[in-house]
Amino acid sequence: MKVAFIVFDNLTMLDFVGFQDPITRLRTMGYLPDLEWRVCAQTPEVTDGTGLRLKVDEIHQPLEGYDLIFVPGGMGTRSLKDDEDFIGWIRSATPCRYKVSVCTGSLILGAAGFLEGKNATTHPAAYDLLAAYTPKVVRERIVDEGDLITGGGVSSSIDLGLYLCERFAGTEARQKIQKQMDYPYQAAFPVRH
Amino acid sequence: MKVAFIVFDNLTMLDFVGFQDPITRLRTMGYLPDLEWRVCAQTPEVTDGTGLRLKVDEIHQPLEGYDLIFVPGGMGTRSLKDDEDFIGWIRSATPCRYKVSVCTGSLILGAAGFLEGKNATTHPAAYDLLAAYTPKVVRERIVDEGDLITGGGVSSSIDLGLYLCERFAGTEARQKIQKQMDYPYQAAFPVRH
Repeated sequence: MKVAFIVFDNLTMLDFVGFQDPITRLRTMGYLPDLEWRVCAQTPEVTDGTGLRLKVDEIHQPLEGYDLIFVPGGMGTRSLKDDEDFIGWIRSATPCRYKVSVCTGSLILGAAGFLEGKNATTHPAAYDLLAAYTPKVVRERIVDEGDLITGGGVSSSIDLGLYLCERFAGTEARQKIQKQMDYPYQAAFPVRH
Repeated sequence: MKVAFIVFDNLTMLDFVGFQDPITRLRTMGYLPDLEWRVCAQTPEVTDGTGLRLKVDEIHQPLEGYDLIFVPGGMGTRSLKDDEDFIGWIRSATPCRYKVSVCTGSLILGAAGFLEGKNATTHPAAYDLLAAYTPKVVRERIVDEGDLITGGGVSSSIDLGLYLCERFAGTEARQKIQKQMDYPYQAAFPVRH
């Protein structure tokens, strides 16, 4: 499995890292030895909403070769959802099987047309914005539509990452990753539709 | 208040970002308008244990001018705790009031001599390593010694960050930051000694 972590200026870094941590443990802890991942953006470097500067692995490369794209949220999504060049690049992920977002990352998936007719969620402060892309806005922490999985605000990234660890590698893998992350909480039960 | 976020190669990014997110919201959400922070390292860029590359604000600058230093954990701490140059740099934080760590970051604080006679914690898999620096290893998620505050593994970074939001700006600030982070969990009650 090949994962594209999409990043952009004014993302919320915890949206990204809270998901990236458990998912990358699928390889580093030996559960999915063939898992690969790349940090993908339109620029060589991105700066998050607090000034953190992250370097990018793949700059403005088409996304169709990935099995999963992950889009975090952050204030940057407010303008990027209407940025034709950015959304066109996200649309290059159309053939990718899994589309995953946390927080307002779902606005980007929506702008790319990936939410049509689908249940989806976002940060609780952005439900109205999400309604522009689907009438099926679900006020839950994790919404699983099979190949489209959306999460709630910022810290739901960890729950969503662990949830996909379980989907991709089973309960024992998820439990051991969760223990290694020293995460004692029980994730809100995901919604399936 | 001026915060130094210490980073290094082979850190665990979630140890850092899980703490940095709530703490920086103290300024971005208006509770501590004078809060400043810098990402500090011995190199212009660091690479975490999964290949994420983060750029650094202050390269090998003395740390004594900060009010708080924060040290995350990660496999990098295993060698850095015995690296005289690195630990000498960390010791330049001796005058800083608050010393804070998550996960195996406490090994670095210990190697710098900041844990002598103090209760402290670390990742549950590293309690034995921490015992080299203090006999008072406490198996709790947050250990508050007043000016020295240590956290457990990886995801305890969020609980520790929120805990310090409450210490520095009060319950209402912490509650609003926690809500904005969409974090529904009740942190394990901190230990005070």
